[in-house]
Amino acid sequence: MSSTVKDMLATYPADLGDIDQAKLTRCIEECIACAQACTACADACLSEGMVSELAKCIRTDMDCAATAAVLSRHTGYDADITAAILKACAMVSTSCADECGRHADMHEHCRICVEACRSCEQACNKLLGTLG
Amino acid sequence: MSSTVKDMLATYPADLGDIDQAKLTRCIEECIACAQACTACADACLSEGMVSELAKCIRTDMDCAATAAVLSRHTGYDADITAAILKACAMVSTSCADECGRHADMHEHCRICVEACRSCEQACNKLLGTLG
Amino acid sequence: MSSTVKDMLATYPADLGDIDQAKLTRCIEECIACAQACTACADACLSEGMVSELAKCIRTDMDCAATAAVLSRHTGYDADITAAILKACAMVSTSCADECGRHADMHEHCRICVEACRSCEQACNKLLGTLG
Amino acid sequence: MSSTVKDMLATYPADLGDIDQAKLTRCIEECIACAQACTACADACLSEGMVSELAKCIRTDMDCAATAAVLSRHTGYDADITAAILKACAMVSTSCADECGRHADMHEHCRICVEACRSCEQACNKLLGTLG
Repeated sequence: MSSTVKDMLATYPADLGDIDQAKLTRCIEECIACAQACTACADACLSEGMVSELAKCIRTDMDCAATAAVLSRHTGYDADITAAILKACAMVSTSCADECGRHADMHEHCRICVEACRSCEQACNKLLGTLG
Repeated sequence: MSSTVKDMLATYPADLGDIDQAKLTRCIEECIACAQACTACADACLSEGMVSELAKCIRTDMDCAATAAVLSRHTGYDADITAAILKACAMVSTSCADECGRHADMHEHCRICVEACRSCEQACNKLLGTLG
Repeated sequence: MSSTVKDMLATYPADLGDIDQAKLTRCIEECIACAQACTACADACLSEGMVSELAKCIRTDMDCAATAAVLSRHTGYDADITAAILKACAMVSTSCADECGRHADMHEHCRICVEACRSCEQACNKLLGTLG
Repeated sequence: MSSTVKDMLATYPADLGDIDQAKLTRCIEECIACAQACTACADACLSEGMVSELAKCIRTDMDCAATAAVLSRHTGYDADITAAILKACAMVSTSCADECGRHADMHEHCRICVEACRSCEQACNKLLGTLG
């Protein structure tokens, strides 16, 4: 999977502009993993006994999955758009990590999701840091 | 379509919190219309004779459609997440309106898309203004 | 909203092939309305008291929203792909209407969602019927 | 990435029904990789000199990415829905592999995309085969 992202960016026929290609690759990989973890966490929460206590967690998971998915298709051709999406993604994955963190000691899927969200947030912030 | 969004929010079984429900409804409607216009504009651009000159327009359309779609499923249960997504959406739809605006006198689909993006941007900013 | 879909297809710069343009427009409109109703229904279900009894309804809503959204961006340029997506969409919206129908007398959002799913299913089947 | 999908399914709190869990995991992984390859291929095509010749490839890529993404969030709780989505996904990834295959000797991104689409198609068909 990781190699698909990297291989595809390596075959890109045009200049990717000033964007840091290694950090963009990493950010896309982390966003895909985060979207997948959030999607799976929302679905696992739905199967827990006390779903109503997890309703906010499910919503945050779904918002985070949707936001991270936006970045997965982005090539950073426009710094303003890239920055706007990265900021939203970093913020939503932080909120999702916080919310999942409240249930991480009870639910293993929440614990894994926290890690994926934190990695995504860091990758977004590292790429944001290069956009000046 | 508009009525579906309004009807569904009217049947919502829980408190939607402090969020302005009329402005949220309007914002979701505009985001859906914007996502649809951007998707159709990208597809129409692909059928124009000079596609390569429209490559940035196609990319902006697709980023804007994806970002606007995130909001279409959001109920504003968390002000931080709502604000983060609204900011990204307002910014990306502004960029998309600007980019489509460069071709609006040549391509009718770009002209329609500009209008949808500007309406979306305004609805996002109006809702953002109520979040304090 | 309806008019955006129609206006955009009217400005389409290329031949849309043999596909029935009125039925395609209607189908896209119904898919967008269905996706929106399913998304809102899933979210409303999450706020009901007995969420665990609605877990299957929430999952069906989300699968239906995702499937219907695929069609919203499709221009029917390839009859095989159009048919494959239409079949999946008709089938998933039937399943979703059935599932929501089980709760339609208790939950108004499920009742509205049934209607949107049935309209979507019919529009998909009508377009499928023209593909030969 | 692969391990995220597997780890999350391993923590799933409920019975996943009669579905073959290993084949479901593999299918979701291949769908995610395929969606990503198609998204990147569409974007790379947009940067090639002769975009208009690649317009169909870009559209097929986008339809395939959207269809494969539907499956990435599905847990196979309903055999009818699973089968409907798998059939669509297998068919669209076949079409996309065929279309990308026409440009695979000229464009490395198309060649990589063919492989991802074929793997996705096979994983979908293998899982379909177990659904009886």
